[in-house]
Amino acid sequence: MKPYNVAILGATGAVGREMYKVLVERKFPIGQLKLLASARSAGKALNGHTVEEATEDSFRGMDIVLGAASNDLARRMAPHIKAAGAVFVDNSSAFRLCNDVPLVVPEINPEDAKKHNGVIANPNCSTIISMVAVNALRELSPIEAITASTYQAVSGAGAGGLAELEAQARAYAAGEPLNIETFPYQILFNLIPQIGSPCENGYTTEEMKMQNEGRKILHLPEMKVTCTCVRVPVLRSHSISLSVRTKEKISVEAARAAIAKARGCKLVDDLENKQYPMPLDTSDQDLVYVGRIRDDLTDERALALWCAGDQIRKGAATNAVQIAELLL
Amino acid sequence: MKPYNVAILGATGAVGREMYKVLVERKFPIGQLKLLASARSAGKALNGHTVEEATEDSFRGMDIVLGAASNDLARRMAPHIKAAGAVFVDNSSAFRLCNDVPLVVPEINPEDAKKHNGVIANPNCSTIISMVAVNALRELSPIEAITASTYQAVSGAGAGGLAELEAQARAYAAGEPLNIETFPYQILFNLIPQIGSPCENGYTTEEMKMQNEGRKILHLPEMKVTCTCVRVPVLRSHSISLSVRTKEKISVEAARAAIAKARGCKLVDDLENKQYPMPLDTSDQDLVYVGRIRDDLTDERALALWCAGDQIRKGAATNAVQIAELLL
Repeated sequence: MKPYNVAILGATGAVGREMYKVLVERKFPIGQLKLLASARSAGKALNGHTVEEATEDSFRGMDIVLGAASNDLARRMAPHIKAAGAVFVDNSSAFRLCNDVPLVVPEINPEDAKKHNGVIANPNCSTIISMVAVNALRELSPIEAITASTYQAVSGAGAGGLAELEAQARAYAAGEPLNIETFPYQILFNLIPQIGSPCENGYTTEEMKMQNEGRKILHLPEMKVTCTCVRVPVLRSHSISLSVRTKEKISVEAARAAIAKARGCKLVDDLENKQYPMPLDTSDQDLVYVGRIRDDLTDERALALWCAGDQIRKGAATNAVQIAELLL
Repeated sequence: MKPYNVAILGATGAVGREMYKVLVERKFPIGQLKLLASARSAGKALNGHTVEEATEDSFRGMDIVLGAASNDLARRMAPHIKAAGAVFVDNSSAFRLCNDVPLVVPEINPEDAKKHNGVIANPNCSTIISMVAVNALRELSPIEAITASTYQAVSGAGAGGLAELEAQARAYAAGEPLNIETFPYQILFNLIPQIGSPCENGYTTEEMKMQNEGRKILHLPEMKVTCTCVRVPVLRSHSISLSVRTKEKISVEAARAAIAKARGCKLVDDLENKQYPMPLDTSDQDLVYVGRIRDDLTDERALALWCAGDQIRKGAATNAVQIAELLL
């Protein structure tokens, strides 16, 4: 296979580092590899490469740029990436809802990736994990509405989030004061029911992504989603409690069978034997685990379920590399 | 005020100890006080009293027995408590759904306490916390359905649950293996989406309490509730993400005003200024904090909200003492 020149923009963060790991694991046919980051990280060695400062000129000769940087940097660099003739697979939220930018979960809408105009967006992490689970049901009946409550790991706030929870656990054990920097409040032994910034309707930007991005990924522009996003003291897997209303009633048995054979899903649903998705089990792998599937008692056409997946991998890095694979 | 002779059955557990603390704090008019527990704890000193073994003869001369013991012990002792002429305010789930046993949250249905037949049941902890929040809305329009996802603290599993999470944090910090006894899996940095035992419909006993007990407390036998109960690595406050469908639409403003003036509730709802209920803030006090109130985007007649309250206090000990106060 022809090798591709690949750059990772934001290579030193939690997602950027994982992108490198996933590229290697999946034997992505890499020609030249560039690890790009801010000036402050330039010159550092990372995985046998030297980190370079990301500038407007960094993208010449590249075929694919995997973006794990801020919305700001993504917006600034996108024109230069396109001008260099590379495809920008971007994990920021800057372009996700743009009409000419596909928003892709390869298990769900791989065909959308082909319609790109130089940029393909990687969806929000909780949205990816939830939609991989929901998509299996969609094949049985169209989705009308989703009620979601998330249990989001600290890794969603990047490497700083992971470090902060671990440091707080160590400080607690040592009887020392807890340092609070990344999150607005202590996260150890606490829950923070805000992720993202406030919107006018009382939801947060993170909560609205589940509806806005979910509609685009599933091609269901009328789908209604209510979401409550909560940061929990978990390291790197997000979990979501979902209620999914479909046009026709789906039986629990049919849902289980659909999840069991769906790409990207693993059915873990045996309450009697204490088998259900848990963040500890779903970390450091690529499948979305789905379980606790049962009839929603408030709605004859809805199912309740619980899913979990690795936020850094399937929720970000792996999904981006899978998109890049669609370009080969 | 005439003093009452009070016994605490299960006085050495997390809830039993808190019952003592709350009785003292609230200046309950105590005559004689008996701290009863299993034979193994008998003779120990606790709060200046000597713990006695709970036997069939323990209740002679008592006016009120606060129960913080197992369903089993509650069932065995109830006839003897009644025979002794005392009223049994029981925190176990043994009698909650019995027709001749009132199930009481004093802010909601204090009048039910008067119809007792020797036993008054204290509801499930998540149910108490959720219903105190929901009741404020019920006064604006009848509740039709509730979708709940819980974030339940380890204190719900008793003193052993608290000790286990703290010990796991210390072991993690020390790089030692984590001891797992009270919960089926590691709870530090993890979530366990099972509380209670499996029911035939795929729900757990804990999840069904929200519907079964909620209906009885609110006097709404048709109310539908779907609940997902999840154990989270939090010490002692439960939080619940709720969607509440009412007969007529309640506006966010009306809901906020109702919560702000509801007994037992505190409105903490200012997303712009990062003010919302969090377990760290709600621990060691008696109010249910309610916030994140907004329109449910999937249902024109529903509101989404987030509440939190101390599981050991309002979810158990304080509610029981409040019930006892209704008997004075």
